[in-house]
Amino acid sequence: MLAEIITIGDEILIGQIVDTNSAWMAQQLNDAGIRVKQISSVSDDRQHILDALQLAQTRADLIILTGGLGPTKDDITKKTLAEYFNTGFRCDEESLENVKSIFARYNRPMLEVNLRQADVLENCITLQNRNGTAPGMWIEKDGKVYVSLPGVPFEMMYLVEEEVIPRLLEAFRLPVISHHTILTSGLGESILAEKIADIEDSLPAHIKLAYLPKLGTVRLRLSGYGKSKESLEKEISSISTQLVSRLSEYVIGQADISLEKSVLNFMKERNLTLSVAESCTGGLISHMITQHPGCSAVFLGGAISYSNDLKQVMLGVTPQTLETYGAVSEQTVREMAAGAVRIYRSDYSIAVSGIAGPDGGTSEKPVGTVWVGVGNAQKIVTRQFQFGSRRAQNIERSAISALTMLFKLLKEDNA
Amino acid sequence: MLAEIITIGDEILIGQIVDTNSAWMAQQLNDAGIRVKQISSVSDDRQHILDALQLAQTRADLIILTGGLGPTKDDITKKTLAEYFNTGFRCDEESLENVKSIFARYNRPMLEVNLRQADVLENCITLQNRNGTAPGMWIEKDGKVYVSLPGVPFEMMYLVEEEVIPRLLEAFRLPVISHHTILTSGLGESILAEKIADIEDSLPAHIKLAYLPKLGTVRLRLSGYGKSKESLEKEISSISTQLVSRLSEYVIGQADISLEKSVLNFMKERNLTLSVAESCTGGLISHMITQHPGCSAVFLGGAISYSNDLKQVMLGVTPQTLETYGAVSEQTVREMAAGAVRIYRSDYSIAVSGIAGPDGGTSEKPVGTVWVGVGNAQKIVTRQFQFGSRRAQNIERSAISALTMLFKLLKEDNA
Repeated sequence: MLAEIITIGDEILIGQIVDTNSAWMAQQLNDAGIRVKQISSVSDDRQHILDALQLAQTRADLIILTGGLGPTKDDITKKTLAEYFNTGFRCDEESLENVKSIFARYNRPMLEVNLRQADVLENCITLQNRNGTAPGMWIEKDGKVYVSLPGVPFEMMYLVEEEVIPRLLEAFRLPVISHHTILTSGLGESILAEKIADIEDSLPAHIKLAYLPKLGTVRLRLSGYGKSKESLEKEISSISTQLVSRLSEYVIGQADISLEKSVLNFMKERNLTLSVAESCTGGLISHMITQHPGCSAVFLGGAISYSNDLKQVMLGVTPQTLETYGAVSEQTVREMAAGAVRIYRSDYSIAVSGIAGPDGGTSEKPVGTVWVGVGNAQKIVTRQFQFGSRRAQNIERSAISALTMLFKLLKEDNA
Repeated sequence: MLAEIITIGDEILIGQIVDTNSAWMAQQLNDAGIRVKQISSVSDDRQHILDALQLAQTRADLIILTGGLGPTKDDITKKTLAEYFNTGFRCDEESLENVKSIFARYNRPMLEVNLRQADVLENCITLQNRNGTAPGMWIEKDGKVYVSLPGVPFEMMYLVEEEVIPRLLEAFRLPVISHHTILTSGLGESILAEKIADIEDSLPAHIKLAYLPKLGTVRLRLSGYGKSKESLEKEISSISTQLVSRLSEYVIGQADISLEKSVLNFMKERNLTLSVAESCTGGLISHMITQHPGCSAVFLGGAISYSNDLKQVMLGVTPQTLETYGAVSEQTVREMAAGAVRIYRSDYSIAVSGIAGPDGGTSEKPVGTVWVGVGNAQKIVTRQFQFGSRRAQNIERSAISALTMLFKLLKEDNA
């Protein structure tokens, strides 16, 4: 089955926002056994949307549209779809109740345009949007399926997960697909590929291996296509066992979860607590951790000691250390990590201090110089990294590297 | 002049990477007065690329392709372009020197496929790639311009900035484009639209208004197209003055920058410092702030006081307050905000405590209940929010709301 994604909205075409929806949807569709043939981003323009729909149905069996369902004048997707299908509107009662309850909850006055959000195409199955006011719509015509979704990511995601994928699986006989992900950290893509070249070369045609690199980690993803789920899973499990034993020390986990979630799971199982002392990462490590429900069983909190003053006030780093070695030094992150464990009474801590840039570099410590310390009351492990010149990347790589170091230490300590 | 961007590569269609190139190119083209009509992502497939080219030239005058210029088997853009233009290849000497020097620099063995990277279409102007081995190509045919660029972001960016935009400006008389962005916070899209309906209705045809909502903020973007930069800017400035005076209290800033950057700029100009006391936002506010270079002039750091213990240890919240009112209460955020100002010696502070979910809610304080306190040594303003049930959203909305409250207070204090 082939799909086309059509994103509607000038904001993508003027480059105001990056289209992250399409990649996410493409992943979900691929996981369900549906190949995305094309992604088309078109403007909030009636004729352009009509043309895009017309062309998409020549290329694909499933056409998913996102965007243009809001209440303002530039949102014309619904009107244009009505024209394309030569149909009218009806008010969807459940959607209307949903709109009303959302406005009641936020205690906001409701306008006529808001009521109109509950209007759906006469020929559609309504996909109830629990996260917003614009319902999704599922329309079947001439053997093709059209799905219209809001462009707000979390509304779109909810509808894809809860409504679209289940309906697709029910309506179509899709091939059985099985995935297995191995999260690695510490090796680049090409060296990784070299280490497992023989395993990759001997993969059967119906099992594919993808490398998904992301600053500091590489996800290895096995995807198998077949008819029997059982035999497919057996095959994939045997291959992944080979891969994991080959890459052992670089393997963080074997589920499609993030590095920080792997750390949280490991610590939670062992009743261990964590605090942080973040300087150049400026809260990113804490933010990554606290995205995960239940993190409070492990994560106590910590210091964003951005200024030198706060490294002393919050973590007990001595003025002598700061003066002698500087804020970005092994000695300072060591005292930061020790201070966090001592003052915040956690089993383990992570400390990071570096020069994220673009300013603040020196010839001795250029932009991208980062010190990380991880440890507990007995032992602190430190390491210096030299990243690049880009601030956002330096911050992200520092966070990933620090979490990788912690995970390594945790595994050693709890082997 | 209309443009179409065609991105070539399966990695986008399987959702392996997010297409950030297109948004960046769209911005550059818009700034140069070229409207992007469509963005199409197609697979590494000969026929699909040929079809995409054929369709694009019916919609646009400028067709920019990225991707598929690498040395591996799945990179077929160049071959397919030769077929489309019915032309052959020639070796570009300057590109060959470039390839050789890059391999020499990294001391890597050079293969036949690497030499082939210097081959360009016979009918093209070569765009020399100083950041990689694959040259760009500029082809003119039947009144249309085709540009083929590598997909690696920094190689593409270099070629667009140094080669493509200057050539476009030289070759075409482009219309003048002017944009103006107003960042608002505190009103939803539809209420905002109603408040300014008369202004929007009376906009001339060559000036458009777009609403760009993002959790808690809405960006209003005026885009004008014309011949005289001066008269266009005058028109847009007069309209934006009307909008700003109508929406006054909800206007955060008048540049296309983020909320937190607006706060940083405002505080930096007045030599004010900031600290944070984050509980449910878990570091997101700090992370948002520290993404911006130069933030250390304003931002000192602060506490991620995730556990109740750390609210006492780090911020001096009293056990009595926590016991009597709970961690999610006006009294607690008030003491957190006061503690941050006092202990971290900042002029202002932000404190947030809430129930992000999915667990931890009670009938009295359901998931989504968030208290925010912002203030200084003299005064602390608090407010309760009731967000929804989704953790990620609750965290993000809490951060945005807290920054909005701070900005409002800053403006009042420094009116």
